[in-house]
Order: sequence, then structure tokens, then C-alpha cells
Amino acid sequence: MTELLTFPAASATLLEPRLPQPKPSTSPSRPFVTLTFATSLDSSLSLAPGVRTRLSGPGSKAMTHYIRSRHAAILIGVSTLIADSPSLNCRITGAASQPRPIIIDPHLRWTPNPADKVLELARLGHGLAPFVLTGVEAQSLPAASVALLEQHGGKYIPLAATSSGPSGRMRFDWHVVFDVLFREGLLSVMVEGGGQIINSLLEPRFHALIDSIIVTIAPTWLGQGGVVVSPSGIRDSAGIPIPAARLSDVSWHPFGEDVVLCGKLHP
Amino acid sequence: MTELLTFPAASATLLEPRLPQPKPSTSPSRPFVTLTFATSLDSSLSLAPGVRTRLSGPGSKAMTHYIRSRHAAILIGVSTLIADSPSLNCRITGAASQPRPIIIDPHLRWTPNPADKVLELARLGHGLAPFVLTGVEAQSLPAASVALLEQHGGKYIPLAATSSGPSGRMRFDWHVVFDVLFREGLLSVMVEGGGQIINSLLEPRFHALIDSIIVTIAPTWLGQGGVVVSPSGIRDSAGIPIPAARLSDVSWHPFGEDVVLCGKLHP
Repeated sequence: MTELLTFPAASATLLEPRLPQPKPSTSPSRPFVTLTFATSLDSSLSLAPGVRTRLSGPGSKAMTHYIRSRHAAILIGVSTLIADSPSLNCRITGAASQPRPIIIDPHLRWTPNPADKVLELARLGHGLAPFVLTGVEAQSLPAASVALLEQHGGKYIPLAATSSGPSGRMRFDWHVVFDVLFREGLLSVMVEGGGQIINSLLEPRFHALIDSIIVTIAPTWLGQGGVVVSPSGIRDSAGIPIPAARLSDVSWHPFGEDVVLCGKLHP
Repeated sequence: MTELLTFPAASATLLEPRLPQPKPSTSPSRPFVTLTFATSLDSSLSLAPGVRTRLSGPGSKAMTHYIRSRHAAILIGVSTLIADSPSLNCRITGAASQPRPIIIDPHLRWTPNPADKVLELARLGHGLAPFVLTGVEAQSLPAASVALLEQHGGKYIPLAATSSGPSGRMRFDWHVVFDVLFREGLLSVMVEGGGQIINSLLEPRFHALIDSIIVTIAPTWLGQGGVVVSPSGIRDSAGIPIPAARLSDVSWHPFGEDVVLCGKLHP
């Protein structure tokens, strides 16, 4: 039994200029990337790491699924996958196809299990199995996991980790990630989270990769200790701190108790 | 030369239900308290402690001064006074009177100087001299500072610090602060900042004291290292983190590139 969601046509019209177009006017060389997430007033995605937190109202869920219906792929980090076991499918009324889940998992922290919701939904035909981008080389991948993913229509995509982030963790260069997804034929990618994924994508060197930003803000302060969206601070050549990212082409759309902010990071 | 600001009548109408009414229907026992400030998307008031940061658009400045015109007092913490040397007056067209600046200065960090903008404006008749709430006892106050404030029409109000906050600093109980201001005949108080003031006022035990919250959000991520509005995290009796504060009676008002959020912390 699949719960189907409905997104009002009037709201869809407001979002339309913010979404990838079925027939882009120019021939793209990379995917259309939409960054979308919901935060509290204090910019938290959740009350604490690994704690799933319902922030936004019911209309916001329908919006998320509507936006999913307009993208070829939806991308999350492995921490979010492990914490939430999300469905990663599209449950909007009238969706023509399912988006491909993309998991960023440099260290192969996720061991696929037939009981994982994303695989269960793939078996039921209610979603696609994920592509897992990992820093582990092909010959070192566990055979059982490779087989399980492939049985469901998913796969691993080994990728060189080109930079190391805080605490020595491997990280991918977002240029490389989106290049790979483009070569897989995925022409639009909706990046949904979690905090590490969003904060790294908001670094200035990746701004040119982001075509659209859609942030839902709920009228709640979660309080300190949450998983916070806030990119690394930056400074100008004189060492003075400057804003890390400013949106242009901004619009705000009150939506139930929440507000939806749309904007761009480059002109 | 005083720059006068104009706030559009249509915007004033939207704010009207959020502001203290000239003739309240019931006889109050404490001031009407409005908490108002502007943050980035990552809930920062400024790029770094002591760095004055222009976040919101020009319309937002007029709004701040319009809201000031509707309050008997405007309250800030001493850190903001020292960092910004703010005018703390009302420069809106048609303002009937000036609000009384209230400085929260438990440890008497501010030494008034005739060159301070707030005193300069008091001398010019463009604003009122501040009332300084301090934890220092009356007989220990420096005589020169007492005289200087009183020459300008301000004064010190010694107050017992009833709790100590993080890092052992003295703090006032907000109940005591607003009681004192009420006894001074100040029937409405606009709390403007900075971070320590706002975060302490957002603690659950003070929610009942706040009548109106007006937050302007600018479409910018300042990045890590800023002065962040985020109250202390709280947990339920089972130790599970729960939201620190949720607004009710919410409205969102797009305002130039920014959005203005209005709400209440109690029904």
C-alpha cells in the first residue's frame, strides 16, 4: 500500500522556474543540480546527529516528492541513509518515472541488506535501487553487496576521493561526482542532504555547479546540538570574514506554517 | 543632519497585530515584550563577534525604526553596545517620541563617554540617554559615569544577578529585568540583541514573557564562526532532545530580498 501525495497546481507553478526543464535550450555538459532541504530557524536539519526530526508541515512532504518527480536522480550522504533508512522514491500522484537514488559513501559504511527500505521498494517496483558512489576500488568491493545491489538494478560506482575533509575523512570533488552522474545519463540531480553533503556543496568552489536552491524553513528553534547547515567561514584577501554564500534571484513562498525560499548561487 | 526613514503604510498594517497596542484591553502587570532581530539563513547575527554585519536590505532598517517608534524602550546587551556603538534612537518619519535605550550590563563593561553616539544623540535631542541595568551595587558605581549618564537624562539601575550563565558570567533573570522596567513606567520593550541576550530570552522559562517575535531572515549563509541565534538544547523527561522553541500564530512576509517572520511563543 503506497500513500500517494498531491501537490497543488498553484504551488507547482511557483516552483516551475526553479526546476530543470524537460528540454533545456542549450546542450548541457553537466546535470542540472537542485539543492533542497528543510531547516529550523537555527539552521538545523535535525535535533541531533542520527535523530530523524519532523520539521516542516505535511505540505512540505508533498513538495519534496513533487521536486523528486522532476529530477532524474536524488542524492544523499551515507549518514542520512543509515540514520533514516529513507524510501528515496517518488510518491506524488502522476509521477511518470522514479528518480535514481545516489548515495555518497566514500568509505563504504553502508552494507546493503534486502530489508533496507530502498531495496524493498525497488523489488516492489515503487522505486529504483541506488547507485553508490564510493572511494573503495572495484576489486575491493564485497561481492555479496555488489550482487545484492545489482539484483535490484543498482550498482557501485568507484570514484577517486580527491580531497580529504575535516577529521581526515575522504571526500569527493563535486565536479567529479556530477561528471560521473552525467555520464550515467542522469541529466538532473536533486541533492537532499544531510549536513555534511550540503555544507560541502555550499563551499564557494562548487557554487557554479548548483542551478537551483530550494530551502524550506520551519518556525522552530531546535536548539544547540543539532545538525546545522552552515558552510565553512571564508575570509577575503585581507583576512576579513565575508559571507560564505549569498543567493540571488530570490523568492519567498509562505507555505502553511513554513516558508519556502528559492534562489540561485550564481547569476 | 538626521536621516529620516519611511516605512510603507501597507507594511505597517501587516505588522500592526504584532505590536503593542496604545490602549491594551487589560491592565498589564509587565511590559509588552517584542523580540526582534535579523539573521542569515544559518541564524547568524554577524560574521564574527564584534563585527558589524549588514545582513538585511534597506527596507529592513526602516522596519526596525518603525517598530522602535511603537515601543517605550529598546533593549540590547552591552556587547552589542560596545561592538556597534549604535544610535539606539528612532529615525522614522512622524515618530511621536523616542524610545528609552536599556543596556544589560551586569559587570559594568561599558564606561560612558561623551563621544558615544547614544549620548551624543541625547544631547542633540534626537534620542534618550540609556538606563543601564547592572549587577554592580549602587555604592560601587564610578561617580563620573553616574554623573555623565545623569547629565544626559539616563541612569544606572543596580539589579541583583540571580543566575550565572555559561563561563561563570553573571546573568539577570528576565522576570526581574522586565519587572524593573515596568516599575520605571516602560510599558513596552523591544529586545534587539545581541546573541547572548536573544538566546537567553529564548529559554523555555522565559517564553511567557515574550509577546511578539519578529525575525528578519536574509538569503545569505554567513558561514561558521558567526554570532549564532540558537537557544540551549533541551530534552524531555526521557532524555530525548526536543525543539527548544516553536512559534505559533505564524506569518511570513516577503520584504525585498528578505523575509519577515512574525509569531508568538505562547498561545
